[in-house]
Amino acid sequence: MRIGFVTLFPSVLQPFLSSSILGRAIQSGLVRVDVANPRDFTYDRNSKVDDRPFGGAPGMLMKAEPVTLALESLGQQDAVIITDPAAPLFTQSDAVAFSKKQSLTFLCGHYEGIDNRVRENVTTHAFSIGDYILTNGELPALCMADAVIRHIPGVLGNADSLIADSFSARKLSAPNYTHPADWRGHLVPEVLRSGDHQAIAAWIANQENELTRRFRPELMGETDVP
Amino acid sequence: MRIGFVTLFPSVLQPFLSSSILGRAIQSGLVRVDVANPRDFTYDRNSKVDDRPFGGAPGMLMKAEPVTLALESLGQQDAVIITDPAAPLFTQSDAVAFSKKQSLTFLCGHYEGIDNRVRENVTTHAFSIGDYILTNGELPALCMADAVIRHIPGVLGNADSLIADSFSARKLSAPNYTHPADWRGHLVPEVLRSGDHQAIAAWIANQENELTRRFRPELMGETDVP
Repeated sequence: MRIGFVTLFPSVLQPFLSSSILGRAIQSGLVRVDVANPRDFTYDRNSKVDDRPFGGAPGMLMKAEPVTLALESLGQQDAVIITDPAAPLFTQSDAVAFSKKQSLTFLCGHYEGIDNRVRENVTTHAFSIGDYILTNGELPALCMADAVIRHIPGVLGNADSLIADSFSARKLSAPNYTHPADWRGHLVPEVLRSGDHQAIAAWIANQENELTRRFRPELMGETDVP
Repeated sequence: MRIGFVTLFPSVLQPFLSSSILGRAIQSGLVRVDVANPRDFTYDRNSKVDDRPFGGAPGMLMKAEPVTLALESLGQQDAVIITDPAAPLFTQSDAVAFSKKQSLTFLCGHYEGIDNRVRENVTTHAFSIGDYILTNGELPALCMADAVIRHIPGVLGNADSLIADSFSARKLSAPNYTHPADWRGHLVPEVLRSGDHQAIAAWIANQENELTRRFRPELMGETDVP
């Protein structure tokens, strides 16, 4: 898969592209990442990437042309994604769906965002990653990219995949504990140390139901993610 | 405000701490960031920060003691936040509430997470940032920190603050457009170029209502964020 980022701050992405699971996916050739900076696609005197909004709104907006030229420099894309509070919430099923694309590019907004004609005419999808405001578009783009990439076959080991399946079944995972069994007087639940596989499975199923009911009851009634 | 991160990958945070609005907040002394690495707090032979979970679950878990010692090295905290899908969703009102604390620290999980006794006995809050799974705890911690920091007085300029107020009123913002008025044949809505302030205000209010009803109808009925 090719993943693109159109961003004014390419350096912010670097550590994520060179470490951890995304870094490994790039090194193993499963993912290719391209970055384009709108600042390299300004052809007016001042290399201006931003300008004042029409209608007197405060702040500065990123201009449509440099963003679009930067995007176009990355070639044809199966999906072009912008983050915007005025959009549906990104979910795990979106992550699964995008992981099947050959190419997708994220447009990272800054200042007060990007001229809305980009969203109207250039992007294929707009998402909000949650009910909070961020100062930049890089963090939500990285979150979505990370959520997508881990579904590409071969990116995660088997162990991680199992965890993913657990969440895809729309249940929260049971709590996990590791050594030592007694940590500062806090004990690991006895059943997990019992070696009784049936009892352990029952405890895990019970915890998953309880946690899901308590923290995310809206998940309980939903159908499985494809 | 003091913000701490307990993380196995401090380098991933660096570009966010040195750029953009968070970087400016640190430079101007409004925010101090401390980072502690559990790897520096392992006292067994192998500097092991992780171990297998009890009960046969797959993968590796971060051990409780190195994480907790790293946290304790940062001093007393008003809030200690962990990210966990099995937790309430982080919202804008949480961001506002945390911005009033003197100190908060984020525990960033890796592998299959952190021994759950840390959540049970050490953290004060657990949040999920959205309905998707990420491969690391650094991105959600940075998202929450970013959402919090922008509410600290002085961190944002006036222009940005106004935008924040607009969202805090639980409406999505109207679309914005900048120059040129005609971009690749796509025109900025005429009303925004009219100079008629009443008509502009009416158009914006109408857009905000329509977008909110379309994309986030659940916001419409809610009371204002404090």
